[in-house]
Amino acid sequence: MAIKYELIKECKQSGARLGKLHTPHGVIDTPIFMPVGTQATVKSLTPEELIELGSQIILSNTYHLYLRPGNDLIKKAGGLHSFMHWNGPILTDSGGFQVFSLNDLREISEEGVTFRSHLDGSKHFISPEKSIEIQNDLGADIIMAFDECTPYPSSYEYAKNSLERTIRWAKRCIKAHKRKEDQALFGIIQGGEYKDLREKSVKEMIELDLPGYSIGGLSVGEPKELMYDIINYISPLMPKEKPRYLMGVGSPDALVEGVIRGIDMFDCVLQTRIARNGTAMTSGGRVVIKNSKYEKDFSPLDKNCQCYSCKNYSRAYIRHLFKAKEILGLRLISYHNLYFTLNLMKDIRCAIKEDRLLDFKNEFFINYGYLN
Amino acid sequence: MAIKYELIKECKQSGARLGKLHTPHGVIDTPIFMPVGTQATVKSLTPEELIELGSQIILSNTYHLYLRPGNDLIKKAGGLHSFMHWNGPILTDSGGFQVFSLNDLREISEEGVTFRSHLDGSKHFISPEKSIEIQNDLGADIIMAFDECTPYPSSYEYAKNSLERTIRWAKRCIKAHKRKEDQALFGIIQGGEYKDLREKSVKEMIELDLPGYSIGGLSVGEPKELMYDIINYISPLMPKEKPRYLMGVGSPDALVEGVIRGIDMFDCVLQTRIARNGTAMTSGGRVVIKNSKYEKDFSPLDKNCQCYSCKNYSRAYIRHLFKAKEILGLRLISYHNLYFTLNLMKDIRCAIKEDRLLDFKNEFFINYGYLN
Repeated sequence: MAIKYELIKECKQSGARLGKLHTPHGVIDTPIFMPVGTQATVKSLTPEELIELGSQIILSNTYHLYLRPGNDLIKKAGGLHSFMHWNGPILTDSGGFQVFSLNDLREISEEGVTFRSHLDGSKHFISPEKSIEIQNDLGADIIMAFDECTPYPSSYEYAKNSLERTIRWAKRCIKAHKRKEDQALFGIIQGGEYKDLREKSVKEMIELDLPGYSIGGLSVGEPKELMYDIINYISPLMPKEKPRYLMGVGSPDALVEGVIRGIDMFDCVLQTRIARNGTAMTSGGRVVIKNSKYEKDFSPLDKNCQCYSCKNYSRAYIRHLFKAKEILGLRLISYHNLYFTLNLMKDIRCAIKEDRLLDFKNEFFINYGYLN
Repeated sequence: MAIKYELIKECKQSGARLGKLHTPHGVIDTPIFMPVGTQATVKSLTPEELIELGSQIILSNTYHLYLRPGNDLIKKAGGLHSFMHWNGPILTDSGGFQVFSLNDLREISEEGVTFRSHLDGSKHFISPEKSIEIQNDLGADIIMAFDECTPYPSSYEYAKNSLERTIRWAKRCIKAHKRKEDQALFGIIQGGEYKDLREKSVKEMIELDLPGYSIGGLSVGEPKELMYDIINYISPLMPKEKPRYLMGVGSPDALVEGVIRGIDMFDCVLQTRIARNGTAMTSGGRVVIKNSKYEKDFSPLDKNCQCYSCKNYSRAYIRHLFKAKEILGLRLISYHNLYFTLNLMKDIRCAIKEDRLLDFKNEFFINYGYLN
């Protein structure tokens, strides 16, 4: 097996789990947040900075890398780790989500999905076999089965067909996977908002005995309460001895709520995306740095933060950088937002260890400005 | 005196000088190249990276900082060093060059220059006194007298009036300067392409007994041979015991030629500007990374370079970053170009020490692809 999940302890206050995930490129403390490096780079930052700010694993995107620079080139470079100079664990998604969300002209058949590149309009076809071939070339530690991400809202019929196809596709992915010894293939649970479909999806996916499972089709426009409700329902059905990954979710409140419900892994582009617009996540809530009230504010982004940006720069300076369109500004906030999030995960792990995650949640949501 | 220039040795093969410049924020080995941080940041890089790649002093721009964020704000922040988190020596220009080059609607009078902001069109007035007031607020180690930069070509009459006004303005700058103990004021030699005017300018400027002198009005469109010819003529007239600064010049060939003619300090935006377009300065000449021939080139930007970018990334990866418009790409080339330039200055200093600068020049220009 490429990876091994070690369950260290379960929280007495909640469904949270403390664990370690052993991968070919290192051991990850779970629950963990994975910064996203869509195009083989976490936007604006170096791998050394990612390590310094606490990243233990990063995510990269199969769809984007397949289109540019191409999986052949990355294979020639010795794989994604070598290509992008990141020697820690990597997870690649299957491309399924992007094929559906970035393409209006896609055509889905049982065989796979035909779509047009968002870069140049050229026509492409990705099947479960092709997705795995690309991911085998990229060489990430964890790869994802090719799924059909059910949109919200969807009819019961649509969600049912979509999850059943996802199961059939997962079987084809397993068959096509050529690097089982050093790449762990995760299955994706679909089923939309329908609990019986989610249950069916979990049960049939578990039968495939994969090294880990992720929950897909959430954070796609549904109310947060519905998302939490579905996780509440699915999580206890998932095997204890395997990691649970909630795809595309990473706002600070959702991280806490997800962990409480037994999730081990998260990823999200939010941290670096809002950083590029000058928005910092802080212990006092969001700081929109271009706001004129920060013009003469010589305090750090977050007075409770120990990151490089907060130790060395003022809000006034970072605001100046954004007003002057200087790249260092978004570097400093990207760094801070990822540090803030990974530090939150560290605090969460500590709270699980001490069986006080619900207490931590209350403090965090009330004292730190993330009200429910 | 705010600074002290220590002449260590003169090259036996050329007019080059090896020296140390003692400033309130540290000692600089000369000849030196100064990376440019126009808006209180050397584009895309942190101060720690600037130190790591060999920067000993950086330059920042009075005109830009006066308009945004304003010298008042920077003064409130404790000065430019504190504001931008750079604790090494800083030189600020006078704003004169930008007032002339970025404004079509400027009006010059004996009192000063009225101009419109390139940001919002608002009307401003900078006099010698105002330039020094701003620079006193910024608090750089070395500040420049407010001058009228003579364009190329200019009539004899224009160049003469312009240099005479620059001398009168320098006297007003000296009078207005309120921080003589910790900020060294340099005078600027003008005179266009006319040797007798350059001579007049040097002689009258020297009489003001300033801590250093710079040569202005070069690299403004004239042929390089004319520039070298003028430096050849001026340099021997300048006092040996004071630093000589050639403003706005920094291409690798011009650095070597300038040092040979006795110049101690240089600055240029070339390194970071071409980096943003994906052009690297290398020991084999310029590498335009978007060129398709680098698509599958897994060698570093410069095989003879020991910088962070060259030790860890391939041309193929950096090309991918540029094609995908990822910020890390221009960071890596900016880092490399500045490292390459500061490493060249180190090699130059070593060659002066060993009295073989002309030999070094020949090797550099022939073997390393910078043909004359």
